[in-house]
Amino acid sequence: MKIAVDAMGGDFAPAEVVKGALSVAREDSALTIILVGDEAAIRLQLASEGDIPSNITIEHTDEVIEMGDHPASAVRKKRNSSLVVCGQLVKSGRADATISAGNTGAAMAVAALDLGRIPGIERPAIAASLPTAHGATLLVDAGANVDCSPQNLLQFALLGSIYAEKVMGVANPRVGLLNIGGEAGKGNDLTKTTYALLESRPLNFIGNVEGKDVFEHAADVVVCDGFAGNVLLKTGEAVAEYIVTLLSQEAKAGGQATVEALGPPMKRLLSKIDYAETGGAPLLGVNGVSFISHGRSRAKAIASAIRAAAKAAGTDYVSTVRDAVPTFSEERP
Amino acid sequence: MKIAVDAMGGDFAPAEVVKGALSVAREDSALTIILVGDEAAIRLQLASEGDIPSNITIEHTDEVIEMGDHPASAVRKKRNSSLVVCGQLVKSGRADATISAGNTGAAMAVAALDLGRIPGIERPAIAASLPTAHGATLLVDAGANVDCSPQNLLQFALLGSIYAEKVMGVANPRVGLLNIGGEAGKGNDLTKTTYALLESRPLNFIGNVEGKDVFEHAADVVVCDGFAGNVLLKTGEAVAEYIVTLLSQEAKAGGQATVEALGPPMKRLLSKIDYAETGGAPLLGVNGVSFISHGRSRAKAIASAIRAAAKAAGTDYVSTVRDAVPTFSEERP
Repeated sequence: MKIAVDAMGGDFAPAEVVKGALSVAREDSALTIILVGDEAAIRLQLASEGDIPSNITIEHTDEVIEMGDHPASAVRKKRNSSLVVCGQLVKSGRADATISAGNTGAAMAVAALDLGRIPGIERPAIAASLPTAHGATLLVDAGANVDCSPQNLLQFALLGSIYAEKVMGVANPRVGLLNIGGEAGKGNDLTKTTYALLESRPLNFIGNVEGKDVFEHAADVVVCDGFAGNVLLKTGEAVAEYIVTLLSQEAKAGGQATVEALGPPMKRLLSKIDYAETGGAPLLGVNGVSFISHGRSRAKAIASAIRAAAKAAGTDYVSTVRDAVPTFSEERP
Repeated sequence: MKIAVDAMGGDFAPAEVVKGALSVAREDSALTIILVGDEAAIRLQLASEGDIPSNITIEHTDEVIEMGDHPASAVRKKRNSSLVVCGQLVKSGRADATISAGNTGAAMAVAALDLGRIPGIERPAIAASLPTAHGATLLVDAGANVDCSPQNLLQFALLGSIYAEKVMGVANPRVGLLNIGGEAGKGNDLTKTTYALLESRPLNFIGNVEGKDVFEHAADVVVCDGFAGNVLLKTGEAVAEYIVTLLSQEAKAGGQATVEALGPPMKRLLSKIDYAETGGAPLLGVNGVSFISHGRSRAKAIASAIRAAAKAAGTDYVSTVRDAVPTFSEERP
């Protein structure tokens, strides 16, 4: 298994990316990691990290897509950028999956333009894994498509359902529609039309879900447009951070130096809500496995994303989606 | 100051509503509370609560709008329901404000049909007060209007800005647009068009805000469509509850009986995120002060809502909005 890692992507690249890649390479010798980026910069970082395992290789590139670059035009112009070359490695079969903590829009563009969409899927989507009280819930779309049609959401449901089954190991995944009321007939024009479409297809559709249902793990897959999905994701992160800040202030006011002084329960909680534990988010609906990581990813988050990408690449997810699209596109008889 | 309270609205009505009203009546003799609903049921509850202060009165009604009733048709048919009579009391000037923990849609319908919209305001909105690290942020719309035009959002900005100034006491309130990226040009069709409109009006518009900005109090007023606003609100509540559940599990696993055993810091935190502390949400854009409370409100939440409604009714909020609409509707020269 070979994973192409964008060594130049993210706020702490290449240092933290190289560190994360090294830690995975050392723990799993069956995995080959291709560090894609400026060879001199990568070698400099590797030199400071002790022995280099033989399952680390370098693919030199001399361009970088910056965070502020316009995604589609940067991908068209910077053909020798680390991000574009990562996509090319997967397309040509020299890598089985790729991950990047760089410009998310550009990573989406590479996936859509270079890997290409799976026939019948109009819009690739970002799938985010949310921690809940009883396991992970997959949110599709988490922010790639801000204006969606009911057909887009229907396709997100297919992409998410197969991902939950093949990669997350969930049998007959429960698919919920993010909405602002539980009953059928609730919601805006988009969700009302989508509800009927979801009912008409071979899915384990369980109906509408609200915020509280999402975090009680009422569904394995939650479908929504990328605007609502991104609001949910960022609000969830923000409230979690806000509560930790509040607890920290309270702890200090109580004479304790840090929130960790609240003891082992707080430490275990902090690790559960640490985004670094979940790593990256897959781009679904394209011909290959492509993960994106948070721009502020450190080594631990990069390592998690590499492991997640390797896991996904070890399944027949993409071919299953490709085979399922034609029959899924027809309504139930 | 007279507040009409829907004694029949909410999961724990009339018992908890009566208790909440009594506690406010006892603490503030300048306030008269009109309990609207079934007189026998109200008197039965009052009888179990000790001496009845003279600033509690009863307005008998013999119909109730149930949680499951269709809002608009229930309001048209059940003209002697507690909710409709509450609206009539405000309209006729016999009360200065009203609150209900009953059917939210019906309360919206009473406000729009009986009190009536302020001329020039196309859609009344629900304003929710979010606790943040540095004070309250007003979210408009929190769920009343699931499909919105840019003009609707522009009007929500006016309604929220004047509310923050007049009722919350914020000078020159900062207005943010809920979006999924900070830069201008980010977002979906609705937010892109709204951004330009907000820039063209006499508002202290600070640009786009994301979930993290909201909980860091980057804006005093956050404007959004009711679908996104409701997703934000419910996700925030759900994540807060989820974290408390996690901490509770951790505390038990650590041999402690309840989350409170984590000590005073946790107790103070729980009180800060307790929705009962904030009470009700005002319906903005109608000719009068009307608050809605959570259906599962207990006495404490009802009391908070009554205090909030009295505070709003003591300002010139409604007339200020009425005067501001004509000039606000024109673009800046």
